[in-house]
Amino acid sequence: MTAFGGIETGGSKWECTIGTDPDDIRAAETIRTTTPRETIDRTIAFFEREGPVDAVGIGSFGPIDRKPSSPTWGHITTTPKPGWAHTDVGQEIRRRLSVPVAFDTDVNAAALGEHRWGAAQGLDTFCYITVGTGIGGGGLARGRLLHGLLHPEFGHMRIPHDLERDPFEGVCPYHGDCWEGLASGRAIEARWGKPAEELDDEPGVWELEARYLALGLVCVMCVLSPEKIVVGGGVARRDSLLPLVRREVLSLMNGYLDSVVVRDGITDYITAPALGPRAGVLGAIALAEAM
Amino acid sequence: MTAFGGIETGGSKWECTIGTDPDDIRAAETIRTTTPRETIDRTIAFFEREGPVDAVGIGSFGPIDRKPSSPTWGHITTTPKPGWAHTDVGQEIRRRLSVPVAFDTDVNAAALGEHRWGAAQGLDTFCYITVGTGIGGGGLARGRLLHGLLHPEFGHMRIPHDLERDPFEGVCPYHGDCWEGLASGRAIEARWGKPAEELDDEPGVWELEARYLALGLVCVMCVLSPEKIVVGGGVARRDSLLPLVRREVLSLMNGYLDSVVVRDGITDYITAPALGPRAGVLGAIALAEAM
Repeated sequence: MTAFGGIETGGSKWECTIGTDPDDIRAAETIRTTTPRETIDRTIAFFEREGPVDAVGIGSFGPIDRKPSSPTWGHITTTPKPGWAHTDVGQEIRRRLSVPVAFDTDVNAAALGEHRWGAAQGLDTFCYITVGTGIGGGGLARGRLLHGLLHPEFGHMRIPHDLERDPFEGVCPYHGDCWEGLASGRAIEARWGKPAEELDDEPGVWELEARYLALGLVCVMCVLSPEKIVVGGGVARRDSLLPLVRREVLSLMNGYLDSVVVRDGITDYITAPALGPRAGVLGAIALAEAM
Repeated sequence: MTAFGGIETGGSKWECTIGTDPDDIRAAETIRTTTPRETIDRTIAFFEREGPVDAVGIGSFGPIDRKPSSPTWGHITTTPKPGWAHTDVGQEIRRRLSVPVAFDTDVNAAALGEHRWGAAQGLDTFCYITVGTGIGGGGLARGRLLHGLLHPEFGHMRIPHDLERDPFEGVCPYHGDCWEGLASGRAIEARWGKPAEELDDEPGVWELEARYLALGLVCVMCVLSPEKIVVGGGVARRDSLLPLVRREVLSLMNGYLDSVVVRDGITDYITAPALGPRAGVLGAIALAEAM
């Protein structure tokens, strides 16, 4: 019987699963991210115990090297996460489990999951954006996962920053007030002094957040012209946030995009992932399936 | 003998040509853009006189409707250009010349031209940006022209605008200080009181322009991860500008993109079109050829 392995590697935990689709998950385990050695060993142990699998898909935090021809294919590259820069993940798992491995970003995996079983079924061009500790984005353009020179890095776009309204300088170690630097969970916590989940529905907090998210989404819309934008991640899970973001996007666009999909269907156009927080790990299974 | 027709429609002129590639142009005519009726009649007359052609490619100013299934396929849609909103171009030319017609944006056509014969040969994912009267962008993602819900509208991204350094409010009728509103030829002329080509190499003018162009390019790089960025258009033709833009892009990225292509090869990475101002009309021939 066919079985695929899916791994979503994150900065705080790795989600490992075996199955073929959302209704056929045969085993799952959450592993805390510690050192590369220990984390990968535990991942291998899970698949040795619960497998076998025919192929493994990995959706990874990044930046990553996913060029098939590269000698460092399968590596996490310049991450600021201590101990994890230039770490081989894909090649080691492929070698130790002796199965084909698909390796992509966590957000491209989530996009593929939403395309296969979720909110983006049947669409050719759309994107998946996660707003959590950081901000990342992936997606499909005309049916193919977004890859180029490297992979998308939505979080590092520069967006307008009104210093009078928000003198906060941003948290990105490379860029200060890029999109992630202003609007990620880390930015919210640094600006307001407590984590996003402990901040009440004070208009000041969430209207500013919605404004920043909308400014980034407008850039994505202008570059990629997505048929839909799926917004996942811990910060975006707050029910009151997406309605504010939609309103800001419409206000910023000011009627320019002559599409009934955006104008009259904004609630479907900017939407939460149908697979919820499982989009990434299920997408990793879809990556394995698509090999 | 095979012959393709190429048309680049612009707000001030239409370029019409017949041939198969840059070294085989058999006829060409520049037609001033007046009313839709007169402009299209002259275009038809050119092809009737100089043809026949097997197919016609049209790279058009926009926004346009290029959805093959749409009843208004081939139309220029919400353009602010007087007399041209909701004008059928593609269907009328197809009907009157009785040949297949490919219809896309001027920048997607130029991108295809650079891919076929110019600076982007062999690349899967890259973009073509024009900085002229307005700002537009197109390109390929993994080998396919960028199309989605509509088509890219790079010029309407929002970028940081330092009002202390540049109190100019921008010229975009929809968004004020979007990318096009701040950095297009129209914006330069409105800000400095004379057209770009009459402005000397004063650092104030061109360093500000380079800064704005770089801010937009960084967004494009973060969303699409292009293998190359080709920058055409009348404003970008000034020799001193692209070196300033490259320096600003590297400064804004601050080493984040771990790619030798960007870090050590920025002169090739951000480059002028190899086909020069002919990229669009030659790309229109490539559109016809690719049908």
